[in-house]
Amino acid sequence: MTLEESLPSIAELEKYFDRLWPICRSLTGAGFRDSMRILKELMPLEESEIPSGTQVFDWTVPDEWNIEDAFVENEVGVKVIDFKNSNLHVLNYSEPIDQWMDLEVLDKYLHSLPDQPNAIPYLTTYYKRRWGFCLTHEQRQRLKPGKYRAVIRSTLAPGVLTYGHAVLPATVKTADEVLLSTYLCHPSMANNELSGPLVMSYVFKALQALPERRYNYRFVVVPETIGAIAYLAKHGEWLKEHCKAGLVVTCCGDANRITYKRSRQGNAGIDRCVIDTLAGYKKSYGKSYEVEDFFPTGSDERQYCSPGFNLPVGSLMRSRYGTYPEYHTSLDDKSFISFEALQESVLLYLRALRAFECNERLVTTVRCGEPMLGRRGLYPSLGSSKQTEEAVSRMMYLLNFCDGENDLCAVAEKAGCSILDLASHASILKKEGLLVRQPGSSS
Amino acid sequence: MTLEESLPSIAELEKYFDRLWPICRSLTGAGFRDSMRILKELMPLEESEIPSGTQVFDWTVPDEWNIEDAFVENEVGVKVIDFKNSNLHVLNYSEPIDQWMDLEVLDKYLHSLPDQPNAIPYLTTYYKRRWGFCLTHEQRQRLKPGKYRAVIRSTLAPGVLTYGHAVLPATVKTADEVLLSTYLCHPSMANNELSGPLVMSYVFKALQALPERRYNYRFVVVPETIGAIAYLAKHGEWLKEHCKAGLVVTCCGDANRITYKRSRQGNAGIDRCVIDTLAGYKKSYGKSYEVEDFFPTGSDERQYCSPGFNLPVGSLMRSRYGTYPEYHTSLDDKSFISFEALQESVLLYLRALRAFECNERLVTTVRCGEPMLGRRGLYPSLGSSKQTEEAVSRMMYLLNFCDGENDLCAVAEKAGCSILDLASHASILKKEGLLVRQPGSSS
Amino acid sequence: MTLEESLPSIAELEKYFDRLWPICRSLTGAGFRDSMRILKELMPLEESEIPSGTQVFDWTVPDEWNIEDAFVENEVGVKVIDFKNSNLHVLNYSEPIDQWMDLEVLDKYLHSLPDQPNAIPYLTTYYKRRWGFCLTHEQRQRLKPGKYRAVIRSTLAPGVLTYGHAVLPATVKTADEVLLSTYLCHPSMANNELSGPLVMSYVFKALQALPERRYNYRFVVVPETIGAIAYLAKHGEWLKEHCKAGLVVTCCGDANRITYKRSRQGNAGIDRCVIDTLAGYKKSYGKSYEVEDFFPTGSDERQYCSPGFNLPVGSLMRSRYGTYPEYHTSLDDKSFISFEALQESVLLYLRALRAFECNERLVTTVRCGEPMLGRRGLYPSLGSSKQTEEAVSRMMYLLNFCDGENDLCAVAEKAGCSILDLASHASILKKEGLLVRQPGSSS
Repeated sequence: MTLEESLPSIAELEKYFDRLWPICRSLTGAGFRDSMRILKELMPLEESEIPSGTQVFDWTVPDEWNIEDAFVENEVGVKVIDFKNSNLHVLNYSEPIDQWMDLEVLDKYLHSLPDQPNAIPYLTTYYKRRWGFCLTHEQRQRLKPGKYRAVIRSTLAPGVLTYGHAVLPATVKTADEVLLSTYLCHPSMANNELSGPLVMSYVFKALQALPERRYNYRFVVVPETIGAIAYLAKHGEWLKEHCKAGLVVTCCGDANRITYKRSRQGNAGIDRCVIDTLAGYKKSYGKSYEVEDFFPTGSDERQYCSPGFNLPVGSLMRSRYGTYPEYHTSLDDKSFISFEALQESVLLYLRALRAFECNERLVTTVRCGEPMLGRRGLYPSLGSSKQTEEAVSRMMYLLNFCDGENDLCAVAEKAGCSILDLASHASILKKEGLLVRQPGSSS
Repeated sequence: MTLEESLPSIAELEKYFDRLWPICRSLTGAGFRDSMRILKELMPLEESEIPSGTQVFDWTVPDEWNIEDAFVENEVGVKVIDFKNSNLHVLNYSEPIDQWMDLEVLDKYLHSLPDQPNAIPYLTTYYKRRWGFCLTHEQRQRLKPGKYRAVIRSTLAPGVLTYGHAVLPATVKTADEVLLSTYLCHPSMANNELSGPLVMSYVFKALQALPERRYNYRFVVVPETIGAIAYLAKHGEWLKEHCKAGLVVTCCGDANRITYKRSRQGNAGIDRCVIDTLAGYKKSYGKSYEVEDFFPTGSDERQYCSPGFNLPVGSLMRSRYGTYPEYHTSLDDKSFISFEALQESVLLYLRALRAFECNERLVTTVRCGEPMLGRRGLYPSLGSSKQTEEAVSRMMYLLNFCDGENDLCAVAEKAGCSILDLASHASILKKEGLLVRQPGSSS
Repeated sequence: MTLEESLPSIAELEKYFDRLWPICRSLTGAGFRDSMRILKELMPLEESEIPSGTQVFDWTVPDEWNIEDAFVENEVGVKVIDFKNSNLHVLNYSEPIDQWMDLEVLDKYLHSLPDQPNAIPYLTTYYKRRWGFCLTHEQRQRLKPGKYRAVIRSTLAPGVLTYGHAVLPATVKTADEVLLSTYLCHPSMANNELSGPLVMSYVFKALQALPERRYNYRFVVVPETIGAIAYLAKHGEWLKEHCKAGLVVTCCGDANRITYKRSRQGNAGIDRCVIDTLAGYKKSYGKSYEVEDFFPTGSDERQYCSPGFNLPVGSLMRSRYGTYPEYHTSLDDKSFISFEALQESVLLYLRALRAFECNERLVTTVRCGEPMLGRRGLYPSLGSSKQTEEAVSRMMYLLNFCDGENDLCAVAEKAGCSILDLASHASILKKEGLLVRQPGSSS
């Protein structure tokens, strides 16, 4: 089965997107749990709960938030703002309210974007008790002076923060892991956020279908920031020892471009393998990409790459958070993304992970002079043919540069090709006993 | 008081310039001492004297030179060359002479510049006994055949080499020092040399007015080369231990450009801080600048950066010696420099030194996951606002990259801003206990 | 005697070229030995023989091949392909044959280049027993259907592989060596191959004429690949210890360009010295050059740079193998090369080797402050002359940067000149005792 054959269908992706879309997710509460229950149809996520008030490193798990309804109605009972139309209308984590007030008072609790008058902004108040409504600027300008009733039927009370994870075991004996992490705390937004959990789920399914995996794969679904911190509080020490690579899966749904944000280490194996993959993909399909250095704002790589962990975790995205005008508004919807792009994102993740699987540190067994490829049938017996064969050249690169200093990715860079271009040749040379795994190398 | 408020007035700069200008300075002698006496009105320089004949490393202090008058007169008693018009007319360190001779004999003792016919060259003969006159080429060509009397009323005799220094103490307990060094051995020239002592004097006054200084500042005024070598012979071992940064102050009076010559170390803290300062200044005011690698010809950085010392000493200049046609001629005069440029040079020195003062090596106290800025009032409580706040981003850079490896300058480089852009945030985070000085770090 | 005076004359080069050209060389056999006998007139090569069947690292020395005649004749006895016209006509290492056959059968044993219809390809079958003829595509297309007799009068039988080497001793006591290696297994081709042995022979003669050599020079003449491997099997351990630099001499006969292929180490002394030489040569004569990173296909540097040896061996060429259309065809003939270019190649080798000889690691004896050049007559006594003297500047670079970290080549790079530009100054400063050889430095 090729990687392409293991991709989800457009219909399947769209079905799950449509089911997840309307749910009002947040850091905590029923919306998060209901969404995770849907993902569990695709991945065997194991749920964990952390009680409100628990200290996780420098943070404290907040009270659990649940919401039933929210609206603003005018004196004649018309709902001028209605949570049922968009769950972005309520300031996320709003405390409950039910009160009549004049427009000028209400106005202090309204949030809109004058520069994007048709967009509802996405705002949260996780760590400060207040309430509010978000609406388009056009909607706001239509509000007439008068009395309004603001109603938010929410609860904020001790409860739990929920997260899920699943470990897909390697087919060989190893404690080495690859981490994939996404978040599930955003209400109805498409690129940021549903693209992340969807791509991750289908990466899981495709990896599960593979006959061989050299690494254990850890799939983590958390609420952003606090969830990743809570996860590290519980699993960080394990990850420090075993996590050899990781990717934060987010913003991978739009069709515009491909972006890779390096890990804080900057040139970790996963960084080099993703870039090798994107370079190869560009060569084959003309798709360009950008590579960004790590920066400490962003998504959960902030936590995985905090100096106390400094894990080799990057992020493979399309249009990165903060760079497109629809970001964190109601315009980041189904029309902003493309299901073909989602499919392609799954493929890019699978290619990058395959490159990482292939990126062994091999050593050549014939170190003095080159090995005689001819008697192994690997060299044209009309030896001086004018065309230097690409295959011979790649084998020569492997046999010369697999000296214990270079992993496959480094050899590929020298040879001007990609890891996967070398991998089949490496495999032949391993069978011939000309290359062996470097003793004691974890990857 | 801002740095700008601590700058000298144009009038003050001009007053001191005009007093220093006419004095015939040299490596030794009354001219040097008279000039230093004037500088002592601005800085409490302590004078030292080294007797002629003293061995300083590979050099020997020469005899002291003093000059009263010098001229060439023709047969009718007209002075055709007169030291009173310009002290560049006498070959510096000329031995005494009083003799009649034909023009063709005299001519062997004359020096002019055919390519710059209106400039008197500046020439010296410190280490070889001879005499001579310098004049413009135009003047030389006007000399008619006939008898001339050459008179130089100088003395060359055992005496002393004089230098001065002042140490402005830190306001905290530390033995760490910053060195500023200039020279005072050139007769009437403006960019090279008076700009140096003037800028240094006002840097002294401004630093003295600061409420806090993390370093001791050492101000050194020497005759060039032999003076710096003599100074190192006496204070070099101390400097090797305590000098954390230094700048040779020279050629900082013209309005044309800004030049930084790196220390021999190449990427010392002072190099990075000056460049950070110039980059920030360019960003704010559009003033471009050039950075040059260290080269072993030049001014007294040659000695401070000789391999036995290799101190982190660069040189912040405007039009660098040797690069402008007026250099080492009578054309390097008051009209060549600008007092506004001198003011600006004082400012650039102060900014660079403030950057160096700020360039601590801090370490983050919350290493696992990022610290919760929200509960410290440092994060907008409407957390998901679309605009990533610059302030938050800079704090995040500090908290993530202050890991013991990076000083503030390195963090600023990653964050795409200047040290001073980070410094106020660093100060807040220190108050919150989120950043602390790295234990055992000297800077 | 200048290097230029030690170059061979065009006539001499051409005479040897013409004598070597017609011989049918191969990995083994009389052609190789006859050719080496001619080279021995120029260099005192000592011959060694390795019996067929001997294991050398991963390879086995093949049977010896000798050939007397080869042709294809048609039914009326006309030789339509004749070894006497070009020894490329026979597939090198062909087994003997004498057989009549139809054109369609014969055709399976013919090799031509449709894209270069007037070129006879050069092909070999060292390690697989078969026979064949090579011819121009035009010639092949003229063959009419009918019967042909294919005759190859060759022998393939146990014998020996022959190689030669000569060591030109240093004029000082040292075990350090410089290796020059070329190959002599190609039949009539000019750039690849006769340029190599010719240039090497005259480099030998010129070095031999020098009054001083700081290194022992080892000259190696082998059949390509198997010969270099056999040589390393015997001398590799010695070379690992003593070989400080090496160059594979090949493809240095055409007039088109200059190419340097770096050693696998990438920045070894020899790499830097050759590049310094080519940069200086370009500066003086406008001849441009290309520098290529090491790649593990190519010539015998593959063996010298195999990971078990990793010797500092590069290759200084003109049009590199594989890059010109005439390569490995009958078009790589006398008209493709230029004897002036061969002369110039000898000169470039001599210059590069002189640069390597000069590339000492010196240390300055006056480390504190700069030495006083004036009292040694090395500094203009009218010290402040406007023109910074190039000579003074270069001495200053030497005195400042010869700190034990930098060899001469590194100082030259900083000073923006070539090693040889510095060497004469270094020699003066050594005489003055201001620079000394770094104790314990091998080079």
